[in-house]
Amino acid sequence: MEFSLFNILDLLGTMAFAISGALAAMSRKLDLFGIFIIAFVTSIGGGTLRDVLIGNTPVNWMENTNYVYLIGVVTILTIIFRNKINYLKTSLFLFDTIGLGIFTITGVETGIQNDLDPIISIALGAMTGTFGGVIRDILCNEIPVLFRKEIYATASLTGALIFVLLDELQVNTDITYLVTALTVISIRLLVVKYKISLPFFTLDQKKSPN
Amino acid sequence: MEFSLFNILDLLGTMAFAISGALAAMSRKLDLFGIFIIAFVTSIGGGTLRDVLIGNTPVNWMENTNYVYLIGVVTILTIIFRNKINYLKTSLFLFDTIGLGIFTITGVETGIQNDLDPIISIALGAMTGTFGGVIRDILCNEIPVLFRKEIYATASLTGALIFVLLDELQVNTDITYLVTALTVISIRLLVVKYKISLPFFTLDQKKSPN
Amino acid sequence: MEFSLFNILDLLGTMAFAISGALAAMSRKLDLFGIFIIAFVTSIGGGTLRDVLIGNTPVNWMENTNYVYLIGVVTILTIIFRNKINYLKTSLFLFDTIGLGIFTITGVETGIQNDLDPIISIALGAMTGTFGGVIRDILCNEIPVLFRKEIYATASLTGALIFVLLDELQVNTDITYLVTALTVISIRLLVVKYKISLPFFTLDQKKSPN
Repeated sequence: MEFSLFNILDLLGTMAFAISGALAAMSRKLDLFGIFIIAFVTSIGGGTLRDVLIGNTPVNWMENTNYVYLIGVVTILTIIFRNKINYLKTSLFLFDTIGLGIFTITGVETGIQNDLDPIISIALGAMTGTFGGVIRDILCNEIPVLFRKEIYATASLTGALIFVLLDELQVNTDITYLVTALTVISIRLLVVKYKISLPFFTLDQKKSPN
Repeated sequence: MEFSLFNILDLLGTMAFAISGALAAMSRKLDLFGIFIIAFVTSIGGGTLRDVLIGNTPVNWMENTNYVYLIGVVTILTIIFRNKINYLKTSLFLFDTIGLGIFTITGVETGIQNDLDPIISIALGAMTGTFGGVIRDILCNEIPVLFRKEIYATASLTGALIFVLLDELQVNTDITYLVTALTVISIRLLVVKYKISLPFFTLDQKKSPN
Repeated sequence: MEFSLFNILDLLGTMAFAISGALAAMSRKLDLFGIFIIAFVTSIGGGTLRDVLIGNTPVNWMENTNYVYLIGVVTILTIIFRNKINYLKTSLFLFDTIGLGIFTITGVETGIQNDLDPIISIALGAMTGTFGGVIRDILCNEIPVLFRKEIYATASLTGALIFVLLDELQVNTDITYLVTALTVISIRLLVVKYKISLPFFTLDQKKSPN
């Protein structure tokens, strides 16, 4: 494994999601292995979906033991320092947001590397970014993060859009990565801080004749 | 992209499931992006599962931007005309049924094209037909359509069986497609209209000694 | 298809999970086709995930009709003899455990055959072993077996670890398989019998300032 910026980001996102998974599992009072499993699945979920859809198999974490060891170590540290991590909900939110920002990048980048159309790369970025958190919430029996007020997928989609725009303008890759991650993270933070929400639509719910 | 009958059907099924997804999301009061996401995932779910199982990667919608644009336009139209679509539950049922009929066809056809055994092609047809609706219901937190009284998978399986029979008899492809779609759709309509249900089995529930 | 020990085990695991799926579906009062579908998905779930992650597509059951016929026959027999299977919960537990033990083996073995790192093979073993049961429980709307007190994934992980150790020591394959299956099955039985549980961790749940 060469340590390109892409790989470093992938590992950082993996760490952030592992922490968020371990915290979610502990707050559900799962046992030791339950915590490892949720941390693992949350971490690798997005990248695994990305690799399976693109046909990059065996998927990334299978070819590279760093992921598994990293998730193990991060999970143990999260368990040890669980009571230093004050304000659990805030921490979970924060690490989840960092993971979302980073995995959006690796998703879009993978799409572009595979010569996919920009709009497809955006969709791939959003799916890669959000999938780990969605699985975590389904397994922990929470309302999926996608559907809470916090604007989750929208932050990821917007970041992915900006990535593609900067890439078309041939902006330096490092800057593109940085701006994308900051976009996703700021949108989520601002939305939660100022309780912004997207429009939704009411339906005249007429009774069905059946 | 050539516009073969197969591709046209795939696009029609995509549209029908996008409408059903958008309606389901609006009835759950999801925000603007939530509606797009559910429409998108419902539309591409069945075809994505089909392509991943068969190893046809990158999956179909990734190689073809038509799908993404089509889903976007259909979703916008569904939002705009949401109150012209009277009887939401009936509309949702109808578009869901059309999608089911069409995606059953593309699933079986893909199996046959890949020289899979007829019984495997039938299973692939049923999985392709039903998966989008199952994901939609899981994400929208509804009872999965598979398990409602409406006979969902059974309609798809029966259509898939008839497809394979007609194909073995070397009936013209267009006719095979048409008959299959009509079979799936009629079964579902008749079952709901006449409240037919399949047999189920009671268990003598003895208490476990543990 | 040659009947290697690997294939025979895969078929045995398929049968065990088909029975567990059929029993779960009947206890949920699903109709005839619902029973077949849950039996089918439970049976093929683990192997399908394994094959998709590894890139072995079309997945195993698609290339081999034996699986489909076997699941069909086993499901019919389970329906016919449903009231001879006393103590439903115990039977479901037992067949589920056998399937878990066997699919853990096929998962690890597949990892090793594909020259994956031992720790990756262990993860693949645990995912292959547990996935069918997890899907069954999600579809049947039960609390996923992963999170009940019964130590499910832990049994699978431990078996997978022992498999890799014996394999490194170049123990005869048949013995490795046998010891692995017995390890998984005994752990689950002992844990339930003696109500052993793994440690879990409490969190000082400070109120978030948000």
